[in-house]
Amino acid sequence: MQLTKPTLLVNLEQVERHIFTMVKKAEKSHAKLRPHFKTHQSATIGNLFKKQGITQATVSSVDMAAYFIEHGWDDITIAFPYNPLEAGEISLLAQRCQLNVVIVSLEALEHLTKHVSEPLSFYLKIDVGTHRTGIAPGDMETLKRIGSCKTHHQLKGLLCHAGHSYRELNQSDASQIYQKSVADMQAVRKLLNRPELLLSYGDTPTCSLLDDFSEVDELRPGNFVFYDVMQHAFGVCSLADIAVCLACPVVAIHPERNEVVVYGGAVHLSKDKTQYPNQAVYGQVVAMHPTGWGDEPIGFVHRLSQEHGIIRMSDKMIKQIHIGDILGILPVHSCLTADLQPYYISLAGHKIEKLAKS
Amino acid sequence: MQLTKPTLLVNLEQVERHIFTMVKKAEKSHAKLRPHFKTHQSATIGNLFKKQGITQATVSSVDMAAYFIEHGWDDITIAFPYNPLEAGEISLLAQRCQLNVVIVSLEALEHLTKHVSEPLSFYLKIDVGTHRTGIAPGDMETLKRIGSCKTHHQLKGLLCHAGHSYRELNQSDASQIYQKSVADMQAVRKLLNRPELLLSYGDTPTCSLLDDFSEVDELRPGNFVFYDVMQHAFGVCSLADIAVCLACPVVAIHPERNEVVVYGGAVHLSKDKTQYPNQAVYGQVVAMHPTGWGDEPIGFVHRLSQEHGIIRMSDKMIKQIHIGDILGILPVHSCLTADLQPYYISLAGHKIEKLAKS
Repeated sequence: MQLTKPTLLVNLEQVERHIFTMVKKAEKSHAKLRPHFKTHQSATIGNLFKKQGITQATVSSVDMAAYFIEHGWDDITIAFPYNPLEAGEISLLAQRCQLNVVIVSLEALEHLTKHVSEPLSFYLKIDVGTHRTGIAPGDMETLKRIGSCKTHHQLKGLLCHAGHSYRELNQSDASQIYQKSVADMQAVRKLLNRPELLLSYGDTPTCSLLDDFSEVDELRPGNFVFYDVMQHAFGVCSLADIAVCLACPVVAIHPERNEVVVYGGAVHLSKDKTQYPNQAVYGQVVAMHPTGWGDEPIGFVHRLSQEHGIIRMSDKMIKQIHIGDILGILPVHSCLTADLQPYYISLAGHKIEKLAKS
Repeated sequence: MQLTKPTLLVNLEQVERHIFTMVKKAEKSHAKLRPHFKTHQSATIGNLFKKQGITQATVSSVDMAAYFIEHGWDDITIAFPYNPLEAGEISLLAQRCQLNVVIVSLEALEHLTKHVSEPLSFYLKIDVGTHRTGIAPGDMETLKRIGSCKTHHQLKGLLCHAGHSYRELNQSDASQIYQKSVADMQAVRKLLNRPELLLSYGDTPTCSLLDDFSEVDELRPGNFVFYDVMQHAFGVCSLADIAVCLACPVVAIHPERNEVVVYGGAVHLSKDKTQYPNQAVYGQVVAMHPTGWGDEPIGFVHRLSQEHGIIRMSDKMIKQIHIGDILGILPVHSCLTADLQPYYISLAGHKIEKLAKS
């Protein structure tokens, strides 16, 4: 297949290996893997999980839940705070599958109870230290009021997202974050006196770095399916683990300032950046070859405008590049890069369908 | 119309006022306005330009050119360096309209000559100081070789984009940038001994701040159609000038840390940020009212994750907010925010169609 414009290539074998690793890890811990599908948003990639026995999924929006229901998934958690304005859509989806929503306040639970008649399950989101959303484990008053709230919906479990693991970290840091999260959720479970509540945990850094998750019932990592330059900078994966690469045509070369300009900008990569190795980087550049891409960076994305990517590389490298060549860019944040694509292409040249914005 | 999820609202009257201002400015300078459509990517908004007499457009990709040709535009400049890999698509489009491409090197012109048989017009991109792409005005050797290159395509003009105007600037800074750009292009025109070549100029900061563009033949600003928080931070527009606002449902409230969490994240706003007034800001927050939104910021977007926007606001403001409310976010970079939308909604509640990624 001849690529002509920025296209996200997916190494599906690599994806299957990442899924296998996480499935085995969950099995060993007797935890259910409920992977987060917000990274790939693709029915085809969802099927690769299904092939390895996964039947439950996590998504980040009502639209994404609808898409995966359409593609045969029947047990889905929307891991985003319940949005009162989508009560109607949530009611309809709850008729079509086992739908689980996330409640972050008493007000939200009261709204859900009043406006969604179809019984569904919900998790309470516990803030284990990220301070984005969730109920503080020490907020006993709110927890008790929620625990005694009369509702026809079923409180299924406690859920947390240790977003504060998104930094450079080693196994010991990861372990500390995990242990603290578990302790917080256990304390809430005890306070509510509901020992049957599931504990749902998940983020790619700790789920990648640690092996034993016996204390929790469910794991929800998402990014691991592709990984990215940011996870590499955190110490969570190698560059060779990254399973997606944006193929970009070279349109200009400026040896006098060691720059190559590609068709591939903020609307293809997103403007997420990382400090790696010691300056702002919007992507690592790799060489393309007939069966994939190289592991060794040959440059990095230094600047982005809407459609342009400005790449820095050495004198030696730049001499080998011509306009019309294709360079690969390993994305800094694969979730956002993937979100920007209308589809992906496999290394075998097949189109991989995904959710379209609607 | 009841909004339930992040939706970009467009104030079409405001858009028409911005178009009117720029049309009049171009007329007074006897310059043609060839607006950049990469900001809105919408046939409906294109028609608002047509209503005011505009017949020529600028786009940033081959796909965008195809979309506007489909919607009746017949004189289009693709203001992105000629991409050799899209020679086939460019040939086809050149059969359907007056297509102008941008050449940034001799190699690109040679490729265009060899691989695109359909005669078209091209502009030479001159690097007037942004150092993204373009030929340096002092690079006489390249310019002369391009000038004497045998090609069936027509060199129509010289084009520049003063991207270095994207900073805090006043009228005098803008004037300096404009004058230097004009002088650079005039020098190249003289060197090539082609006095008939058009000079094409355009960026929103200088086109907004200055009034007289008599020295050039064509103006190509784009962002002014919507403006945004970044342009406001540069001193180019007022917050009241911003014609787009992302309507976002409130899903969580944290008075203890002055934070409100909305459904509206990096996949709706983009991760572009600005230092305004004195810290990183991903959007200014305004109140929504039945006929539009307020001009006075009531908070700002402090952090973004994939679907979450974390807003900071005062104690007083936060007391008035409830989950299920809708807050407005004025985008930092409207081009990137608009690109992320599948459609827009007018203040009258009508769907405004736009280019879908394909």
